[in-house]
Amino acid sequence: MSVTVIMYHHAMGRWEPNARGRLAAAAMTLYAEQGFEQTTVAEIAARAGLTERTFFRHFADKREVLFYGTEMVLDLLARTVADALATATPMDAVGAALEAVGAVIQENPERARLRNAVISVNAELRERELIKLAAFATTLAAALRERGISEPTASLAAETGIAVFKVAFTRWLSEQGQPDLPRTIRQSIEEVKGVLTVRAPV
Amino acid sequence: MSVTVIMYHHAMGRWEPNARGRLAAAAMTLYAEQGFEQTTVAEIAARAGLTERTFFRHFADKREVLFYGTEMVLDLLARTVADALATATPMDAVGAALEAVGAVIQENPERARLRNAVISVNAELRERELIKLAAFATTLAAALRERGISEPTASLAAETGIAVFKVAFTRWLSEQGQPDLPRTIRQSIEEVKGVLTVRAPV
Repeated sequence: MSVTVIMYHHAMGRWEPNARGRLAAAAMTLYAEQGFEQTTVAEIAARAGLTERTFFRHFADKREVLFYGTEMVLDLLARTVADALATATPMDAVGAALEAVGAVIQENPERARLRNAVISVNAELRERELIKLAAFATTLAAALRERGISEPTASLAAETGIAVFKVAFTRWLSEQGQPDLPRTIRQSIEEVKGVLTVRAPV
Repeated sequence: MSVTVIMYHHAMGRWEPNARGRLAAAAMTLYAEQGFEQTTVAEIAARAGLTERTFFRHFADKREVLFYGTEMVLDLLARTVADALATATPMDAVGAALEAVGAVIQENPERARLRNAVISVNAELRERELIKLAAFATTLAAALRERGISEPTASLAAETGIAVFKVAFTRWLSEQGQPDLPRTIRQSIEEVKGVLTVRAPV
């Protein structure tokens, strides 16, 4: 116990208050202003009033500032599906998981907006974002199978959920006023049901 | 006219019968045997009994052997949505377009199977495949808007269609006997309707 405390204090010697948050905000602003490719870690550190060394204590590289929450989100998706009521349908469970992720994003809409602007103009980052969403779908499908849902139902619910999430996210970004991402996700799931089941006029 | 004919004959002087098909088959076999990264253009050409120069007359690089049909498929998707009956629902139009692509893939199941095995073990190729599928969704949504379908309906139908296509393709690959991709796509669209509209037990 005392060893832990000593090590903690030792680390605290180099600690800058909220260095991580300051670095993330500085990076996002610079990426949006001058582009991701054009921004160096030295510039990010300078903008945050910190050193490059401090940057690398918090982030592996420039790209990680944009993608650091992924593991946490995968956990949240899996956990929410696992915790859904026994009576929940596969799509109910997927919807609840995506709304939970929506609530996390909703905590900082400005970050989400800036991040999206940065990613949408950079091919490599767009690819990385697609990979992230594919991992969301894989995790959701695995969590549904854990609940005893068989294939192809598990994958259909998971992939459809991610398809709806993409549309809902884009929609939320363009909404005026006080948009609410979890609500937009819920709405979009209802709408996709309508889109799929509408009958052709006879 | 005569100039064209002369140029044509000149090009024919270097022509090898079905060079493109032989190169594509040799490449796919080598990628599957020893991995995409490990295979050189020199090896592909040698396996096909042709020169590297001939390879580069047909393909820009090693990767293009795996992705050369994309533009044609985007055209097919857009055209099929445009040609759907006026009474077709958005999802009917998307379904018809995906079945048309399924029919193209179904023409050479062995190529699709080998190609999938090669792509699934290479991160860069998996990314490229996700980008291709994202382009399919964008094209489908644009074609629906051309038909007067408004947002978010157009994007919801397009993204859901691609989600179902991914699941149907994986399912088709694992099916025994004489699997039929267009039929598996049609079936999967019916199933996703069930997955979305099933009610929770009360």
